[in-house]
Amino acid sequence: MDCIFCKIISGEIPSAKVYEDDDFIAILDIRPVHLGHTLLIPKKHFRNIYDTDKEIGEKIYPVLVKLANAIKSALNCDGLNIVQNNEPAGGQEVFHSHIHLIPRYENDGIRFAIKHKQYESNEQMAEFAKKIANKLK
Amino acid sequence: MDCIFCKIISGEIPSAKVYEDDDFIAILDIRPVHLGHTLLIPKKHFRNIYDTDKEIGEKIYPVLVKLANAIKSALNCDGLNIVQNNEPAGGQEVFHSHIHLIPRYENDGIRFAIKHKQYESNEQMAEFAKKIANKLK
Ligand SMILES: [Zn+2]
Ligand SMILES: [Zn+2]
Repeated sequence: MDCIFCKIISGEIPSAKVYEDDDFIAILDIRPVHLGHTLLIPKKHFRNIYDTDKEIGEKIYPVLVKLANAIKSALNCDGLNIVQNNEPAGGQEVFHSHIHLIPRYENDGIRFAIKHKQYESNEQMAEFAKKIANKLK
Repeated sequence: MDCIFCKIISGEIPSAKVYEDDDFIAILDIRPVHLGHTLLIPKKHFRNIYDTDKEIGEKIYPVLVKLANAIKSALNCDGLNIVQNNEPAGGQEVFHSHIHLIPRYENDGIRFAIKHKQYESNEQMAEFAKKIANKLK
């Protein structure tokens, strides 16, 4: 499979490695929002959150917690964004599931240029909640 | 404690509920990026990723996977962002840990206005990786 993250995991492509265990590696993003911007990547190849491997899903968040605290302590950053982009419409560029850990600083000028939507009514909002809830049954 | 999410969890403040189990609720964000924008909130109060409750940390990502697939199926969205903002510098506004699930659509005009940084050299990049890795020992 021609997957850049699989090649990084196998060592075929070099990377700046932050962490490794049996299931994950963490490396620096080569196009960082801030220096120290880290990617947590499961070694098993799957596309994104939708088809998450069950065992990886159970293990990944505790690794994020560990990395978050290490990044804070190493960089003395003021905040941190955890971001997973799924599918091209969600900004995903590499189709091997991964999660960004982005150190943030007071007044660092990073803004999410978002025009928020509004629900027309409480009824419309309740309808949307129900629509999603129904898919969870 | 004067926490709006604790009050939503207790039912003191109403919400558009999408999901509930023993450990979590998911509700619609009242200021959505897109309609259906959902928040996954642990019932136990802790501040953010840094002080994540151990048991919650082990359970949260599988719930995100379930919600992500339900949102996709309910809304027929083209993509999804998973976002956790930590500390004010990271955009956190409610200091009870929570994770955003943001449905996305092709050409929806949502952009992260980010000027990316650059590592000056491979050596600088390796230094940053080492600095974080050292905190994981
Ligand atoms: Zn891969
Ligand atoms: Zn609370």
